[in-house]
Amino acid sequence: MQVILTVTMNAALDVTYELDSVNWKSVNRVRTVRNCAGGKGINVARLLKALGRRVMVSGLAGGATGAALRAELSKDGIADALVPIAGESRRTLAIVTTDEATLLNEPGPTVSAREWRHFYDHFTTLVEDADAVVLSGSLPPGVPLDAYAVLGKAARRLGAPVVLDTSGRALTEGLIAHPVVVKPNKEELVSATGFEETLAATAALRRSGAENVVASLGDQGLLADTTEGCWRAVPPRRLVGNATGAGDGVVAALVAGLVDESPWPRRLVEATALSAASVIEPKAGSADLDVYRQFREEVTLESCSR
Amino acid sequence: MQVILTVTMNAALDVTYELDSVNWKSVNRVRTVRNCAGGKGINVARLLKALGRRVMVSGLAGGATGAALRAELSKDGIADALVPIAGESRRTLAIVTTDEATLLNEPGPTVSAREWRHFYDHFTTLVEDADAVVLSGSLPPGVPLDAYAVLGKAARRLGAPVVLDTSGRALTEGLIAHPVVVKPNKEELVSATGFEETLAATAALRRSGAENVVASLGDQGLLADTTEGCWRAVPPRRLVGNATGAGDGVVAALVAGLVDESPWPRRLVEATALSAASVIEPKAGSADLDVYRQFREEVTLESCSR
Repeated sequence: MQVILTVTMNAALDVTYELDSVNWKSVNRVRTVRNCAGGKGINVARLLKALGRRVMVSGLAGGATGAALRAELSKDGIADALVPIAGESRRTLAIVTTDEATLLNEPGPTVSAREWRHFYDHFTTLVEDADAVVLSGSLPPGVPLDAYAVLGKAARRLGAPVVLDTSGRALTEGLIAHPVVVKPNKEELVSATGFEETLAATAALRRSGAENVVASLGDQGLLADTTEGCWRAVPPRRLVGNATGAGDGVVAALVAGLVDESPWPRRLVEATALSAASVIEPKAGSADLDVYRQFREEVTLESCSR
Repeated sequence: MQVILTVTMNAALDVTYELDSVNWKSVNRVRTVRNCAGGKGINVARLLKALGRRVMVSGLAGGATGAALRAELSKDGIADALVPIAGESRRTLAIVTTDEATLLNEPGPTVSAREWRHFYDHFTTLVEDADAVVLSGSLPPGVPLDAYAVLGKAARRLGAPVVLDTSGRALTEGLIAHPVVVKPNKEELVSATGFEETLAATAALRRSGAENVVASLGDQGLLADTTEGCWRAVPPRRLVGNATGAGDGVVAALVAGLVDESPWPRRLVEATALSAASVIEPKAGSADLDVYRQFREEVTLESCSR
């Protein structure tokens, strides 16, 4: 079976504290603590694994938090090729009660030039066994801003197509390596190109190097601007839930379609369905497979004119 | 030099998140994360070490959090004789801004009967090298409620005097082993004996097995009801700060006085001074040694009549 390598340079341990209620400015007893390996690339890998795909996770992990997140990956049965660093991996804390949630994101570790070079060498070895590569999420301090361009070029040279899902400078610099698929959301699209109009923005990203662009537009589904045509895919109904997971669902389905070489319309239906199935699961990187199967039958796909 | 063994059955990793402000129900970026080994016995050990004493820390620690707290102990140069357990040690999280603090305490691990027996065996070996033992803090689920009685009897049999600082059933059961010093605060005293009046309550604890009782009464200093007499020790002025650390300062000074066999009035002056010096340090188990030295000269000691 084909292997998909996902890269998470800023991997995290996602911790959830559940309480009935929180007395801010006071002392509280946490009812349950849940830990989960996190970061966009890891969430994508978990979704791919749920779909029966072979995955390998790389990126950087360090300290006690790095060890804890690797232990969680192992529990999830995901092959871990994370590269150790001296710094302490970050933790994201969600404090959740019945009617509210507060998120506290720790700062990530700072990566040394030596650690980055070591990661690069390791990555090129891993890519040799990979059929596609997902480069997902933000870059920690110390990793060069053109990291996704450097990794993308190496993957391209070694024959592995790249899906890129990031924002800001990491995105604009990453386009230099001509990733096969780039998946921005609306905000990332506008901020990277300066164009408010989606098709103008996707065209700009393609001019800058992206072969194909799939924009995730929340309720309005996906807009795909590809070498084979342009489509809009819209889910049958709106689902409320974990919006963070929506983009990871799109990326997981798109990379699966890429290794299968399935036609673009099929990929977009799959991506819309998996995104919806991820939104309604509170845990990042999880999907309701019943919703996924049902939505696959009900997504509306239409061509759009550029 | 004499060795003091402190026991923390419910050791913790104390984590502090510092932020400028917190938007509850929203996403926040944590500015700095500080980790510190915690739990009352560990705080007492850190204070003793700061006073130049030889200490050894035991108790239970497990999982990634247990590993992280052991790493912090090692950084602090404290000899770690914690016994590994399968469960995950608890974390206490303080979310601190310039003008407020919210505390979130994780539930502790559940200890198996086998782990408790293993700890007991380990404890009896450690006590052979100890000149005094501090039993401090709450008991995690699974550890028998009479644990401090069982450990206290073993210590007594092996010739090591015991200082006990706990509350509720762990305290009342622990008295059975005749600890040499028991240090309740006002609330623990009332709740363990039913007496609102401090001297009536300390007398009741002594009838139940405590050889000497030192009650920490916040602003009003200490009241000691001992085999050699009864005293009140009052600090020269009120200090505002970390009240949690105040009791650990008292315990550290009392056990140091116990191994030195210094006269009770001297022990009480030391305990009042170290308690004050701990209150003004935000980090538990730390003391301002200048305040300590200054307060030692200024504590007021008076005999009281029973």
